[in-house]
Amino acid sequence: MRMVDLIGRKREGAAHTAEEIGWIVAGFVKGDIPDYQMSAWMMAVCFSGMNKEETAALALGMARSGDIMDLSDVPGIKVDKHSTGGVGDTTTLVIAPLVAALGAPVAKMSGRGLGHTGGTLDKLESIRGMRVDLSIDEFKANLRKIGVCVTGQTGNLAPADKLMYALRDVTATVRSPALVASSVMSKKIAAGADAIVLDVKCGTGAFMRTPEEARELAGTMADIGAQLKKKIVAVITDMNQPLGLAVGNGLEVREAAQLLRGEIPSTDPLYRVCVLLAAHMIALTGRAKDEQEGVKLAEKALQSGAAYGKFLEMVNLQGGDTGMIENSDLLCATRSTQQVRSDRAGYIQSMDAVKIGVAAQLLGAGREKKTDSIDHSVGLVMHKRCGDAVSAGEPLATLYVNDDRRAEESADTLRHAVRVGEQRIEPPPTVYDVIRQ
Amino acid sequence: MRMVDLIGRKREGAAHTAEEIGWIVAGFVKGDIPDYQMSAWMMAVCFSGMNKEETAALALGMARSGDIMDLSDVPGIKVDKHSTGGVGDTTTLVIAPLVAALGAPVAKMSGRGLGHTGGTLDKLESIRGMRVDLSIDEFKANLRKIGVCVTGQTGNLAPADKLMYALRDVTATVRSPALVASSVMSKKIAAGADAIVLDVKCGTGAFMRTPEEARELAGTMADIGAQLKKKIVAVITDMNQPLGLAVGNGLEVREAAQLLRGEIPSTDPLYRVCVLLAAHMIALTGRAKDEQEGVKLAEKALQSGAAYGKFLEMVNLQGGDTGMIENSDLLCATRSTQQVRSDRAGYIQSMDAVKIGVAAQLLGAGREKKTDSIDHSVGLVMHKRCGDAVSAGEPLATLYVNDDRRAEESADTLRHAVRVGEQRIEPPPTVYDVIRQ
Repeated sequence: MRMVDLIGRKREGAAHTAEEIGWIVAGFVKGDIPDYQMSAWMMAVCFSGMNKEETAALALGMARSGDIMDLSDVPGIKVDKHSTGGVGDTTTLVIAPLVAALGAPVAKMSGRGLGHTGGTLDKLESIRGMRVDLSIDEFKANLRKIGVCVTGQTGNLAPADKLMYALRDVTATVRSPALVASSVMSKKIAAGADAIVLDVKCGTGAFMRTPEEARELAGTMADIGAQLKKKIVAVITDMNQPLGLAVGNGLEVREAAQLLRGEIPSTDPLYRVCVLLAAHMIALTGRAKDEQEGVKLAEKALQSGAAYGKFLEMVNLQGGDTGMIENSDLLCATRSTQQVRSDRAGYIQSMDAVKIGVAAQLLGAGREKKTDSIDHSVGLVMHKRCGDAVSAGEPLATLYVNDDRRAEESADTLRHAVRVGEQRIEPPPTVYDVIRQ
Repeated sequence: MRMVDLIGRKREGAAHTAEEIGWIVAGFVKGDIPDYQMSAWMMAVCFSGMNKEETAALALGMARSGDIMDLSDVPGIKVDKHSTGGVGDTTTLVIAPLVAALGAPVAKMSGRGLGHTGGTLDKLESIRGMRVDLSIDEFKANLRKIGVCVTGQTGNLAPADKLMYALRDVTATVRSPALVASSVMSKKIAAGADAIVLDVKCGTGAFMRTPEEARELAGTMADIGAQLKKKIVAVITDMNQPLGLAVGNGLEVREAAQLLRGEIPSTDPLYRVCVLLAAHMIALTGRAKDEQEGVKLAEKALQSGAAYGKFLEMVNLQGGDTGMIENSDLLCATRSTQQVRSDRAGYIQSMDAVKIGVAAQLLGAGREKKTDSIDHSVGLVMHKRCGDAVSAGEPLATLYVNDDRRAEESADTLRHAVRVGEQRIEPPPTVYDVIRQ
């Protein structure tokens, strides 16, 4: 078998066998297949796609490239959650302690920022001392002790996915349903969860632009899950604007802490999505009889402070400075802040959430190349949402800036991302659909 | 500008600006853009294509990545010829002296063979003592002295093309009309020709399988030429069988010498293509008022011995042993020859020219890898062409063999390359089309 031939066949639209997919993944991990062949193949996959069998084979191949975690010695049904990635998506930081506070063990392995989207690990690292490189033993010990742990993939867990994820990030091969679905599922398979709630986003800031595309991706992931006997629920949520108001690592941790402390109203989209996802997770474990009961339990855990307490417990157990959570302005203590103002009055017609992500990235919050370092304290906070009224000169967002030279391009990008017009419009829905197996 | 964004835009089908293309080429040559991004971008180009302006910008960018040869001190309009590559394609060896004999300087930089296709440099090296590694000064001096020189690339010509080609070769991104056209044109621009005649081949042994594909590629190259103010004519010729009867280095030099000496009839496809290409080259320099007059002049130069005399002059000036041209059986003096016979009577229905090239390669005439050495005297001579009648046991070809162990596989490959059937068929045309700017 020669990789150049397989690339050529995928370019011509042919389907690979499961054996060929396994060979590609194993060869890439071993280093026999160089990055430049892998990126060409992945670009061909972006155009030619993959069928169900190929996608499942890729997910399984990536999972089998390392250890498959055995969580059977942690009591209870282990429930995991995955978001397909968006801008201002702080849900993991809220949901993990929230669900754990309700008694369901949350074993969560997260990733780093990809393109314009943030990554949970990068966010957690804005907390001084916070460790996200736990060993499998530490991971399990934390789970047994407090019922929740959020860490990076261990060295031996789906290493193929880690390598491919990094390469996709810098070769514009992120937006492929086949690659997204198999990447997500490989990690879930390897991480050993019994039940998974998928948050599949759609809109200007998501991999999937329309609810239809999101449903297709959700279906692909559910199919892979079904073959591997995992309980799966997929929620299709909106990404036509940042989910939270904060975009940037420390800023998003601050917003998560605010939500967990009950400082964010229940009408807020971030609040609503977090509660809904948590409700499905709790229902999948049998701790709530259905989603409705799950919602009630989740709201109670937020109001009572139980979820916030669990968050502090988790940060503390992973070595993080809880003082930065309690006094969370420390998470975004930049040299300066700067207002980006609207040049006209009207209503927010639409937002380009990708551009908003890029505006934060330009300030130093995200990576361009896989080797780039990031600045955890910079980013931006939106003051408006789609449908909101705005007057001329009113701030659209606040930039948190450490390097003034980067601020102008960021502000320009942000201004171009927000369209203000005269017409009054309805805000987009927060949740489109729930897909069950 | 970020490479990942440019890759993404090309994946989405957008066109780059000339500035962006220039930035990509320069960044790749400098090493700022890694192989894995370049291969992903080239794969996106395979799917999304490039428009006229992009293709011209790519050709120019690659040409400008190195030296652009200045031939202004060589008097006259310098005319170059390029073939997209085929089997038994000995045209350069005939045309260069033929056109020079008619007073037009021919400054030709050629390449080596790889896979089933031969390379002019390898063919010339079958002449004892022949130098194909001339310096730029020697190249120009020869041009001024006798009006013709055929050598390998001198100087640092289009290094970007070299790097990109090596990457395309291993990432299945070779077959893109935009990349092929700009690669060819970058070398022609760098080599400093004023006018170029392109021989675009189509058929079983060519890069382009159909006349339509060949026309598209020819049109793309002509467009690049137009943008860059080079006079261009493209001739679409057949490659459903070897162009000449000889396939192998010394054997092809012998056939070229035979043609130049007037020993090959004017109905022969090699003869016809050589005269047609030469006629267009002469017309482009203004030495003939049109193609028809060019054909007459070229035929006269073959009959008079002027072209053959120029060939001997060129070989002599580059250090080659003209005795091997005069007594050209010395060019293919192998240990043995062997007939490959038809096992049935009928008519030649079709040939797979790639397999015929591979049959010669198996005898030692070609390279599988760039580092392989070749045997200049081995190869094969076809006795039949498509449409010819053949009786059972009649030779299809003669193999020129130095290593008997290689003969059997070669003979088998050749037999599989030639399909004999009962139906009488028309031979394929030799020339499909002429495309002018």
